[in-house]
Amino acid sequence: MDAKEISKAVIKRLPRYYRYLGELLEENVERISSNDLSKKMKVTASQIRQDLNNFGGFGQQGYGYNVKYLYTEIGKILGLDVQHPMIILGAGNLGQALANYVDFEKRGFKLVGIFDVNPVLEGMAVRGIEIQMLSDLPLFLRENLVEIAILTLPKNRAKEMANILIENGVKAIWNFAHVDLDTPDDVIVENVHLSESLMTLSYNLSQYRQEHVEK
Amino acid sequence: MDAKEISKAVIKRLPRYYRYLGELLEENVERISSNDLSKKMKVTASQIRQDLNNFGGFGQQGYGYNVKYLYTEIGKILGLDVQHPMIILGAGNLGQALANYVDFEKRGFKLVGIFDVNPVLEGMAVRGIEIQMLSDLPLFLRENLVEIAILTLPKNRAKEMANILIENGVKAIWNFAHVDLDTPDDVIVENVHLSESLMTLSYNLSQYRQEHVEK
Repeated sequence: MDAKEISKAVIKRLPRYYRYLGELLEENVERISSNDLSKKMKVTASQIRQDLNNFGGFGQQGYGYNVKYLYTEIGKILGLDVQHPMIILGAGNLGQALANYVDFEKRGFKLVGIFDVNPVLEGMAVRGIEIQMLSDLPLFLRENLVEIAILTLPKNRAKEMANILIENGVKAIWNFAHVDLDTPDDVIVENVHLSESLMTLSYNLSQYRQEHVEK
Repeated sequence: MDAKEISKAVIKRLPRYYRYLGELLEENVERISSNDLSKKMKVTASQIRQDLNNFGGFGQQGYGYNVKYLYTEIGKILGLDVQHPMIILGAGNLGQALANYVDFEKRGFKLVGIFDVNPVLEGMAVRGIEIQMLSDLPLFLRENLVEIAILTLPKNRAKEMANILIENGVKAIWNFAHVDLDTPDDVIVENVHLSESLMTLSYNLSQYRQEHVEK
């Protein structure tokens, strides 16, 4: 299977397939038909068949999909079959929430460090990992392999720290700071702009009201 | 101005314009040309002109855009000119992080209640709001106007609580639980599936490596 042949639209839907297949596995479901999966996921069965055909011809007519095989193959495409050492910058509530999220580790995202500026937090442990000071970050990055950095810092500090991460070879940033980072092409950034998500909700709510209530 | 005439693609970009215009306002910038805004936002000036033309002909050639006016108008479109009473279900790290996010209140999202199942948290205050027990939620909803509910609960409880919210007239759910909620058409849901975002990052990282390193 060659992941490169799979379209972007399919790729965007993969994490959702992965989530549903994982739930089926937990329920000990071994096989599922595209029709049953369609009912669960509320997309058409033909979309499911088209999407999953990208993963080879193992969904035999009348037999349904092998849940475990499909889950494993999609996991590989998503890069979840290898371990990704990860650090968190910012040990506030959001940083701690992400640190405590045990499902990440199950999927290969291994937390190896947490950093903050607040000296009160120094040495406090979150899931067995001691919070270090941000000033120690450059040395840590030179001595440890880090693939993904999670930024939960205020925007000014986020930019400064992103530069330090990049200079020290970190190739992926999961950015929760309210700022667009300026990164070279070989650094992957995934933004989670929470306030923009809340504004989208607010927009949809306003629109719905205008269309339905005010008429 | 009629918001309904504005295309979905433009709408999706509005929160980002809003963020940049807000930053310009903080820097006391009164006017900005599409070229200067283009450099800041890293989109083409012609895209900016096209997008912002939706908000009427106030960007006169050579004068640039009136930052404050544009900020205010986009805010109205996004529904930020009215107050949205909001509750948080789940007072763990993520719930507390969202409760402490002061920018939400500035934009009209007013926190009026926080709920959890953990009796240890009962009565503890987050930003002056006492944590209540989830069992008190139905009564609270009958006695208080709540427009938006933020769900930061485990997936099983999230579904159950979403039903209680809907039965009691809450019309918008900002869902952080790892589950697709089953809601009627008149309830707006905005999902933040954090693990799917992290998987997208991991996918892009794997792809980049396959394309650049393994060749």
